[in-house]
Amino acid sequence: MDKKLLLHDVGESVDLFLLIKSSTKGIASNGKPFLTLMLQDKSGEIEAKLWDVSEEDESAYAAEQIVHIAGDIQNYRGRKQLKIRQIRLATPLDNVSAADLMETAPLDKEKIADEITQYIFEMKNANLQRITRSLIKKYQGDFYEYPAAMRHHHEFVSGLSFHVVSMLRLAKAIADQYPSVNRDLLYAGVILHDLGKVIELSGPVSTSYTLEGNLIGHISIVVEEVSKMAEELKIEGEEVVVLKHVLLAHHGKGEWGSPKPPLVREAEILHQIDLMDATMNMMDKALRHTKPGEFSERIFGLENRSFYRPSFDTE
Amino acid sequence: MDKKLLLHDVGESVDLFLLIKSSTKGIASNGKPFLTLMLQDKSGEIEAKLWDVSEEDESAYAAEQIVHIAGDIQNYRGRKQLKIRQIRLATPLDNVSAADLMETAPLDKEKIADEITQYIFEMKNANLQRITRSLIKKYQGDFYEYPAAMRHHHEFVSGLSFHVVSMLRLAKAIADQYPSVNRDLLYAGVILHDLGKVIELSGPVSTSYTLEGNLIGHISIVVEEVSKMAEELKIEGEEVVVLKHVLLAHHGKGEWGSPKPPLVREAEILHQIDLMDATMNMMDKALRHTKPGEFSERIFGLENRSFYRPSFDTE
Amino acid sequence: MDKKLLLHDVGESVDLFLLIKSSTKGIASNGKPFLTLMLQDKSGEIEAKLWDVSEEDESAYAAEQIVHIAGDIQNYRGRKQLKIRQIRLATPLDNVSAADLMETAPLDKEKIADEITQYIFEMKNANLQRITRSLIKKYQGDFYEYPAAMRHHHEFVSGLSFHVVSMLRLAKAIADQYPSVNRDLLYAGVILHDLGKVIELSGPVSTSYTLEGNLIGHISIVVEEVSKMAEELKIEGEEVVVLKHVLLAHHGKGEWGSPKPPLVREAEILHQIDLMDATMNMMDKALRHTKPGEFSERIFGLENRSFYRPSFDTE
Amino acid sequence: MDKKLLLHDVGESVDLFLLIKSSTKGIASNGKPFLTLMLQDKSGEIEAKLWDVSEEDESAYAAEQIVHIAGDIQNYRGRKQLKIRQIRLATPLDNVSAADLMETAPLDKEKIADEITQYIFEMKNANLQRITRSLIKKYQGDFYEYPAAMRHHHEFVSGLSFHVVSMLRLAKAIADQYPSVNRDLLYAGVILHDLGKVIELSGPVSTSYTLEGNLIGHISIVVEEVSKMAEELKIEGEEVVVLKHVLLAHHGKGEWGSPKPPLVREAEILHQIDLMDATMNMMDKALRHTKPGEFSERIFGLENRSFYRPSFDTE
Amino acid sequence: MDKKLLLHDVGESVDLFLLIKSSTKGIASNGKPFLTLMLQDKSGEIEAKLWDVSEEDESAYAAEQIVHIAGDIQNYRGRKQLKIRQIRLATPLDNVSAADLMETAPLDKEKIADEITQYIFEMKNANLQRITRSLIKKYQGDFYEYPAAMRHHHEFVSGLSFHVVSMLRLAKAIADQYPSVNRDLLYAGVILHDLGKVIELSGPVSTSYTLEGNLIGHISIVVEEVSKMAEELKIEGEEVVVLKHVLLAHHGKGEWGSPKPPLVREAEILHQIDLMDATMNMMDKALRHTKPGEFSERIFGLENRSFYRPSFDTE
Amino acid sequence: MDKKLLLHDVGESVDLFLLIKSSTKGIASNGKPFLTLMLQDKSGEIEAKLWDVSEEDESAYAAEQIVHIAGDIQNYRGRKQLKIRQIRLATPLDNVSAADLMETAPLDKEKIADEITQYIFEMKNANLQRITRSLIKKYQGDFYEYPAAMRHHHEFVSGLSFHVVSMLRLAKAIADQYPSVNRDLLYAGVILHDLGKVIELSGPVSTSYTLEGNLIGHISIVVEEVSKMAEELKIEGEEVVVLKHVLLAHHGKGEWGSPKPPLVREAEILHQIDLMDATMNMMDKALRHTKPGEFSERIFGLENRSFYRPSFDTE
Repeated sequence: MDKKLLLHDVGESVDLFLLIKSSTKGIASNGKPFLTLMLQDKSGEIEAKLWDVSEEDESAYAAEQIVHIAGDIQNYRGRKQLKIRQIRLATPLDNVSAADLMETAPLDKEKIADEITQYIFEMKNANLQRITRSLIKKYQGDFYEYPAAMRHHHEFVSGLSFHVVSMLRLAKAIADQYPSVNRDLLYAGVILHDLGKVIELSGPVSTSYTLEGNLIGHISIVVEEVSKMAEELKIEGEEVVVLKHVLLAHHGKGEWGSPKPPLVREAEILHQIDLMDATMNMMDKALRHTKPGEFSERIFGLENRSFYRPSFDTE
Repeated sequence: MDKKLLLHDVGESVDLFLLIKSSTKGIASNGKPFLTLMLQDKSGEIEAKLWDVSEEDESAYAAEQIVHIAGDIQNYRGRKQLKIRQIRLATPLDNVSAADLMETAPLDKEKIADEITQYIFEMKNANLQRITRSLIKKYQGDFYEYPAAMRHHHEFVSGLSFHVVSMLRLAKAIADQYPSVNRDLLYAGVILHDLGKVIELSGPVSTSYTLEGNLIGHISIVVEEVSKMAEELKIEGEEVVVLKHVLLAHHGKGEWGSPKPPLVREAEILHQIDLMDATMNMMDKALRHTKPGEFSERIFGLENRSFYRPSFDTE
Repeated sequence: MDKKLLLHDVGESVDLFLLIKSSTKGIASNGKPFLTLMLQDKSGEIEAKLWDVSEEDESAYAAEQIVHIAGDIQNYRGRKQLKIRQIRLATPLDNVSAADLMETAPLDKEKIADEITQYIFEMKNANLQRITRSLIKKYQGDFYEYPAAMRHHHEFVSGLSFHVVSMLRLAKAIADQYPSVNRDLLYAGVILHDLGKVIELSGPVSTSYTLEGNLIGHISIVVEEVSKMAEELKIEGEEVVVLKHVLLAHHGKGEWGSPKPPLVREAEILHQIDLMDATMNMMDKALRHTKPGEFSERIFGLENRSFYRPSFDTE
Repeated sequence: MDKKLLLHDVGESVDLFLLIKSSTKGIASNGKPFLTLMLQDKSGEIEAKLWDVSEEDESAYAAEQIVHIAGDIQNYRGRKQLKIRQIRLATPLDNVSAADLMETAPLDKEKIADEITQYIFEMKNANLQRITRSLIKKYQGDFYEYPAAMRHHHEFVSGLSFHVVSMLRLAKAIADQYPSVNRDLLYAGVILHDLGKVIELSGPVSTSYTLEGNLIGHISIVVEEVSKMAEELKIEGEEVVVLKHVLLAHHGKGEWGSPKPPLVREAEILHQIDLMDATMNMMDKALRHTKPGEFSERIFGLENRSFYRPSFDTE
Repeated sequence: MDKKLLLHDVGESVDLFLLIKSSTKGIASNGKPFLTLMLQDKSGEIEAKLWDVSEEDESAYAAEQIVHIAGDIQNYRGRKQLKIRQIRLATPLDNVSAADLMETAPLDKEKIADEITQYIFEMKNANLQRITRSLIKKYQGDFYEYPAAMRHHHEFVSGLSFHVVSMLRLAKAIADQYPSVNRDLLYAGVILHDLGKVIELSGPVSTSYTLEGNLIGHISIVVEEVSKMAEELKIEGEEVVVLKHVLLAHHGKGEWGSPKPPLVREAEILHQIDLMDATMNMMDKALRHTKPGEFSERIFGLENRSFYRPSFDTE
Repeated sequence: MDKKLLLHDVGESVDLFLLIKSSTKGIASNGKPFLTLMLQDKSGEIEAKLWDVSEEDESAYAAEQIVHIAGDIQNYRGRKQLKIRQIRLATPLDNVSAADLMETAPLDKEKIADEITQYIFEMKNANLQRITRSLIKKYQGDFYEYPAAMRHHHEFVSGLSFHVVSMLRLAKAIADQYPSVNRDLLYAGVILHDLGKVIELSGPVSTSYTLEGNLIGHISIVVEEVSKMAEELKIEGEEVVVLKHVLLAHHGKGEWGSPKPPLVREAEILHQIDLMDATMNMMDKALRHTKPGEFSERIFGLENRSFYRPSFDTE
């Protein structure tokens, strides 16, 4: 099997099928058009320039196309870049699919679904359990496919549901340790907190924001979904308003998009777990490619900090 | 007819029926309980202390009761205070009702309703018009009774709908002057923007926050109401998501409670008109009792500023 | 008549006289000099690069020159750009003047002057009226020519006085609705609020800041002008200090350049009207070129927001 | 056994030995001196006023004294207050010690020590392990006695070491879930992070800040302790500088007292765990005395929020 | 000679003539009126309560009156308070004047004037020198009498001019050390920077803000004074606009009241010297009454910090 | 002697030995590598591009190399740039050393050392004097060689110790004027405040941050050095903790890197002097190359302000 894209060091040659994640046209200083391609396989993504392109090139090398590329890994301002020597579109005979080239969660979709189902099964409050189960069922197609975000963290296929599983494990550890926590409310909050993203985002590939995503946002979307589902299931009771609050408040502050700050214990915990899992994912992604004794690339989502990997961290 | 409460100057005696707006128990430094009463008639409100109260006094002189009081207006740290000489509960024979003593909008309820109806009538976009009309109809009982807020601005009976009328007039002037404005979208936004308050607040008298008000807030409440009404009326179309955005964004910023900033022209205008009408109301209330050549009381809702009334402002 | 510059879509050819608004030299990555030209006609402005320029080109194609250009409209990073095929300086025989190519207010200068004069005429407070009239008269040449700002809003010929007219209409609507407003003070504030710009800015074409503009600023400039004029007219009275305050405070906050926040009712209103008219102008300019169903370019002066034009906004 | 102090409802009588936590003199509005006593037993603390005190009373009823009090629980501005009927100093014959009346950690000191020792035992990096073990040994007397803070969270006997145990459990759950975490570095950081408090604070009873606490602070204190211990143990290696960084950065931001933000993965995790355990402790303390369906007292350390305890939270 | 007011320790008796700085009426919790008096002599000021006052007392014991008081120094919440045993108004026979009881600058008025005159004499730029000299001459009566502020720093008779002298000495030391400094511009800035206070404040005793002070502020006032003086002296030249800028910018930032930040070297220096001298004055005032080894009272103007006086600071 | 680098105007030719301060590789838009060189002599530094470089060029023209260059000064976006015509590495025969080309303090190293020694000699408190003298002695090699920072201010050879001398002179002037200042504590604070930079930074040439610099920072480093030295010298006493505080607090605020704000008079003064000397150095550097009547380049360290040099500032 071929060595993956990001496993190549600067100076090495590359001969691989890659997926075009995005393609942007520019005008070089000599007046000729060129394309900036973001190319990826399962190991991650890299930037490449395609110089002096014709109009046909422009339409051929578009987002979501698969290409075969021969080239070299170079260092450009401290980041790897791919210098293209040869490029062609993949054909059916090449037998490569987009799914082969996209990063996915480290756990497969069925296992994710099983684990989430198990957590729902453990819930004792019937109202919270029914709302949670019904909403996950309603959106299960997208819920297990979507990324958790466009970029920053868990931005891969099944990233959304994997983020939920990861948070559920933290939630369980916390509820085990602090017995006053309402486990059902916390689990329901964790499972549903980002469900609005299946409406906010366009899909798992070449993800962008929908009109509802731009104008309403996933927080307000999921709150409304809970209301509608509760009505459909004829559930009335304080669980509905409290669950809506927990979801509404999970960004923690007005300036981060929550119209109310957490005013219920489990809302505060949900906010902190969400932050912790996103942070762990961003740090892992950056440090995975950092050698012991060096600093990582800057992480935009963590105030642009660059993290040091200790030289005694031999992993 | 008796001279109203706030028309009395410091040093004058008072002999009036008043409504208890709130009653709070305290312990004096001599160890004896006392009540802090907030008393009102149509001219406004004043604080009074009732010393050395018995347990019967405590339960008798509670919020929403009408009392007859003889006393004197005093100056306490630059604010008027009422020193009670005699107090008794009103009886049916006194023939005084709470409505006689509560501040109301300067326009009567029927006129407000007529004017709002006229604006709805002028809307040309059928989708926006139907949603707006149906929601106002659904909540008309409360909509024409509620205050616009617990304190700060339009905190009187029918304050909510009067605030809407006042903003509609501004909206009309603006739409007349800037022809690119979508008049229907702006009117719908103005009429519905605070409708969630009929669920957020407990009612027109002794107003407090409901559980939904505390945990969800009037912005998210009204957005959900629009969705439900659109579904009920089987209206699908971009008007629904755009109208929801306009309502969602009307506080202008995340830290002021809007999960999205205004991203549609009419959302931005709605935010500015709302601010302007609230500001005018707060300044009017403070300056009404300020003599030319003097500074007003500090206005909490306007960064605690104290406003000067010019001596050439003879009104 | 020729189709104006900004009415051309990407891909279309252009053959037009244009005014050079600014011309900046750069060095291309091949080491050769080039010019970045900002070109305009009445429809707006566009950027163009002129590659491999000689020293003669550099001095010829300078700001305020008129040129004839043949070229093509291209898309560069989501913005239109003009690719120059041919360029030459206009000659007297071409019979084109700068005024033919500069954006102007939508109302002509005489109508603006008439309308402002009428508002001054309606003022009843003699002190405020005399100061206002005399100052406008003193600076009438520049006042009716200058833009309201270097960029962001009303950045066109007569933009300053048109901004005033537009705000006066809002001021009138507000004074009609809220009778406690001191109409004379508000009108005087609106008419004079940006008059200091005739000293702060260099002029209506290729506008830049003067030394006084940079070091003192238009707010302090106009306040001093009021003092001098009052002295000249031998007007003494509280109107002078209050009018100075209204002007001083019109940016609303210290961090926005006002050494005092609004402490008089009309100062607060002036600040809000100023904000509203500037906002309307910025949104109009951005949305005018945005198709229904799309988002506008980002607007720097509105926290870099990009506004959505609803698809039902057929205008 | 007597019913504890905070288990009494408003209206009930109290007849108990209590510890004076603090005693402050005031002058009543009748010109006579009084004492504000903060009284506590293991269930928590309550305020009481002692009116018309003599100079002897003043010196007798001082902090750290034990008193016997007969009185009544009252409601004062929404908080419980104790109205004293009788008060006297405890005598040796009463056989009551301060330790009987002070709140302690829910786990006893020996169990805490055993658990921390076990975590140290599991560390594999010899340098980190030796520094950690030696420092805990050096300060073990105070480390197992001190509170974690003067107020806000874990402000009780053994609060410091109990906070560490609680965080170690979280750290273990996180390290189990995210395998890239350097477990030794994280454990060392957790165990030592607040050790500087044994120098910053005066002791477990009537806790105040020492001069070093005020001028240097526990963060800089512990960093220096690590340096000195490493030198004493002749440990040189990157572990020392990285461990110092992890401790230095554990408040997360400059404005919260850390001269460097977390730049190592385990530093960031430590910061988040510390926040989480402190938050849980503050919410628990406030909600423990809140009935289902009601809002708690405001929590100063959580932006003054008041938390709602759901009515379905029957626990 | 009598021991001054603030030299008395808690517990000592006092028998002194004092000046009433301010007198505020309150209502005690027993319903009876009392006065809060701020009393001063040259050593500083102290608070006292006068209980159960009649209407005659109220008008007698007003601000600016001199009284004879016998009483005791007490400790109230960590601050000294004066408990009044006897009080009477001073009579002409007592032969005490307000000037005997007010704090003044540590340098007498004539010496201050001589020193400032000397600095003006050393200025070489004729334009700057003439403006500075003429303005000081114009306002010399008030300039040498006024305090530099209502509270916080140099709030005593001649405080304004003493603050200027103190800053001039710093300015000289700085100009000696950094030869690129324009000494004339810096001296002119220092001498004039707070001159607007003679119009902003009401006077040296019972100081309050004038209408111009409230609505315009001392910064804009002095800038206008410079313009008028330059016109009167027929001085035209860049010195005028630059000097106005230096004065305008001396608060350093918009949020601190300067409409422009310092954009000229000497403006930045003036801002820093002003800050330094004010800081020194506030720290001196607080630490003068603090014993070695103790913390001072909190200083409002220095972010409410409490400063430690080292025990080795034997002075 | 040759005319220095920065004394050449745009358009002039250059024929000089220069030191490469940094060298960064880029990829031109034609796909070929180039180097961005930062070149310097004693007059300052300038940027230059070297196009189409081979791999040999890349390794030859590296940081810290001396080159001989013939070229032309050009204007690029308002900054000078050097266009290279010829370049070669210097050889031993050229007889040029790095020291000949690096900027150094305006005072030579021996004079700096003498002056600092004199200040230490004047200190009367034996504890403070011994700690200060011993630490300067311990690090004297680096202390008199290092710059005070990587960029922004005093970023030249001996910049650190020259910054100290400059601040000592200010400290002396201040202590002379305000007699309450503890001169010994202030001198010790000034001399030691940035000593941690000899560990934080890599050295006087091609300066970068060390691991300790990045993770611990010079403030915590120097505080620990004081502790160790005091222990070594067996000095115990409040001087140690107070001196540590003064150093810890010298950045003034948490967000600027000080874990404690200044809580001792001399700590506050040290902070202000440090700021003043850094500000003077940054303004001088920018204005030195600015002609009278023009604005300087923007100064990053002073909120990106551009300073005006008055036309009457003939210096």
